[in-house]
Amino acid sequence: MKIPAVKGTRDFYPPQMAVRNFIVEGWKAASRRSGFEEYDGPIFEYLSMYQMKSGEEIVEQLFSLTDRGGRQLAIRPEMTPTLARMVNQQIHTLPRPIKWFSVPRLCRAERPQKGRLREFFQWNLDIVGAEDVLADAEVIFCAVDYLRSTGLTAQDIVVRLSSRRLLAALLKEAGASEEQLAAIYGVLDKKAKVPAEAFEAMLQGAVPSDQTRGRILQIMNSQSLDELEPKTSEGKDAMEELRRLFSLLNLMGIGDYAQFDIGVVRGLAYYTGVVYEIYDRGALLRAICGGGRYDNLLKDFGGPAVSATGMGMGDCVLEILLREKGLLKDENLPTRRLDYYVVFAAEQWASEVVRLAAQIRLAGWACDFSYKGGNLGKQLKQADQSGAERAVILGEEFNAGKLIVKEMKSGRQEEVSTDEFLASLKRV
Amino acid sequence: MKIPAVKGTRDFYPPQMAVRNFIVEGWKAASRRSGFEEYDGPIFEYLSMYQMKSGEEIVEQLFSLTDRGGRQLAIRPEMTPTLARMVNQQIHTLPRPIKWFSVPRLCRAERPQKGRLREFFQWNLDIVGAEDVLADAEVIFCAVDYLRSTGLTAQDIVVRLSSRRLLAALLKEAGASEEQLAAIYGVLDKKAKVPAEAFEAMLQGAVPSDQTRGRILQIMNSQSLDELEPKTSEGKDAMEELRRLFSLLNLMGIGDYAQFDIGVVRGLAYYTGVVYEIYDRGALLRAICGGGRYDNLLKDFGGPAVSATGMGMGDCVLEILLREKGLLKDENLPTRRLDYYVVFAAEQWASEVVRLAAQIRLAGWACDFSYKGGNLGKQLKQADQSGAERAVILGEEFNAGKLIVKEMKSGRQEEVSTDEFLASLKRV
Repeated sequence: MKIPAVKGTRDFYPPQMAVRNFIVEGWKAASRRSGFEEYDGPIFEYLSMYQMKSGEEIVEQLFSLTDRGGRQLAIRPEMTPTLARMVNQQIHTLPRPIKWFSVPRLCRAERPQKGRLREFFQWNLDIVGAEDVLADAEVIFCAVDYLRSTGLTAQDIVVRLSSRRLLAALLKEAGASEEQLAAIYGVLDKKAKVPAEAFEAMLQGAVPSDQTRGRILQIMNSQSLDELEPKTSEGKDAMEELRRLFSLLNLMGIGDYAQFDIGVVRGLAYYTGVVYEIYDRGALLRAICGGGRYDNLLKDFGGPAVSATGMGMGDCVLEILLREKGLLKDENLPTRRLDYYVVFAAEQWASEVVRLAAQIRLAGWACDFSYKGGNLGKQLKQADQSGAERAVILGEEFNAGKLIVKEMKSGRQEEVSTDEFLASLKRV
Repeated sequence: MKIPAVKGTRDFYPPQMAVRNFIVEGWKAASRRSGFEEYDGPIFEYLSMYQMKSGEEIVEQLFSLTDRGGRQLAIRPEMTPTLARMVNQQIHTLPRPIKWFSVPRLCRAERPQKGRLREFFQWNLDIVGAEDVLADAEVIFCAVDYLRSTGLTAQDIVVRLSSRRLLAALLKEAGASEEQLAAIYGVLDKKAKVPAEAFEAMLQGAVPSDQTRGRILQIMNSQSLDELEPKTSEGKDAMEELRRLFSLLNLMGIGDYAQFDIGVVRGLAYYTGVVYEIYDRGALLRAICGGGRYDNLLKDFGGPAVSATGMGMGDCVLEILLREKGLLKDENLPTRRLDYYVVFAAEQWASEVVRLAAQIRLAGWACDFSYKGGNLGKQLKQADQSGAERAVILGEEFNAGKLIVKEMKSGRQEEVSTDEFLASLKRV
């Protein structure tokens, strides 16, 4: 009986695993360059944790389960609630600012489509306990530093930036009430994703007043920060903060990647300050990355009022983009790297091949050999196909305590004493 | 509202994550030394896949879920069924032998106890398409090579080896029928785990004949291979195979880790040949690792009859053992490694700290700085606490195009031109 994989999941055969490792290792290296520490949580949490603060869309897409004890659980669809739970648990002992990263496997019961799968990997960066917009700049910097390290330039991608705090001030100046804000964010986030008519109908639902709605639409049509003129001190502060963020990104040398975009609102319920999404310049794909400041999440999860900011970047859209730009190169994606491949010139040395391969591995080198044996030519062909850097040949010379080491690329080979060869393995 | 973590799961704060990374990276490095390629599958599969061939215990411990399409799924409790499914899908194009490794996250709804959690990581090594016992030796070698690399010696751990094929022949010679075998394996696997009386009652249930049962108990009391004298050709072949395995392990230089143990039967239903478990010598802990040959699994999953052998090693018992033996050393477990920490001598260079830190990171080095600033002494103290190798100090000299680089360990510091410093970053 043949059982298939579940729809929307991926099998990572060695070539696909090499791509995943290339992406994940790049994420980890960039995180470490910027001084983030790695953490992780369980693959499932209490269902109620996600029902509290995640966006409606995420709650609808939960893979939920009930364990034998009757507990309602869910496979994690995002990492931030786990982060909030973990930080809250140790908030009084962890030195702040907390700069953490993680690369969780996440599951969402979405309709599988280009760039969206039911199971994916997401790079998370978060800074907790630093209110200054410098922390937002650090997170954005680290994300861009990674993307830049893959070869993506400011011509390829753009960080579209806005501020929910600024937007809130402007919306209130336009006549919206505090209570209407969450619903308006939800509608505005859909602006670029639904037909204009549908958007207008949704907005009418959230904002009955024609006058207020007209003013909101005018705000949303702004092309630059200069067009916006907040009148309240809250609005002015938020504007100043956003301008400082742009100047920090310039200072960090990545200003050419950043651009103001009032249309970036974010779907998640918990953002309160700076928000951003990274797109390919053509905007042909979904967002590569999204993030922002969330000031109330720790408190909402039973902790103290500590501000935080963070971002998430999934592997699916990123892989499509890297592939389209020719940035997934075979030489970065070997399924294995061998230092040595041991072969015999005649069957009588077959056992010695096993012994020598074991010695090479125990000394810390990657080594393999053929189970099938066969003639020397056949084995050398296998050595070549394995991608090994060197072949070690056991033949007549072996009886005199010697073996042949062959560089596979150049074809150059030399006779070495077996003892010297073994001693050389330990020298590194 | 404070929501706790689910019982039996772990939160990996940076110090715990460093331990997990240390273990997982060791597993991956050993796999690569022996020429295994990495693969992975989804976190959940169809429930029916585990109901087919996994042991009864595992099926009882499944975390199952139903998705919106009504599909019955389960979080993976072991990796081998996924491996069988994936290999079967590409059996006609994958070059054999297939040597694959994986480090899946697995979930089992067990009662949490020492060395057993509901969520854990398990190193899997498998070789598919090599019938020779050399493949079993390779898997065992790779597992021992890893354990040896952590500092565990043949005095600390032992590979207890047997053969289901040999045991089957002996059981049949003792009067058991082919149909009774699976039930007898299940009982024998419990021998060391339940009280003697319970074991005898279970055996009586599986083998009603007193004479057969007496002979089986005699077989199970054997202390060495020499005490066993199979009479059938199948038994003799199996004996020869097992002897060859021991001689291969000797040839590979790890013979002192291996020991025959007729009591090793393994709980999983699908083993057909060599079976083994690795224990701490005192056998105070559960098995660190278990594995063996499974000849029919691919066929049972709808593929061709291709033989395979493999092992699994969980992280929980291993971590306890490494800790007990003092082999988890702080210097191997940093939560981050910084090359540079940039500080300012006076507030006027605060922006330049941000700029320089970004330049250092973009050049590929790990670097951090203080968000809080404060006086130079305070910042240097933070640099020290961060574990950074060097501090870069921006002070009066900066106006003259110079900065101070301080080696944190030795305290030695020197003035360098800023341009030269930046150029030196790119030289590596």
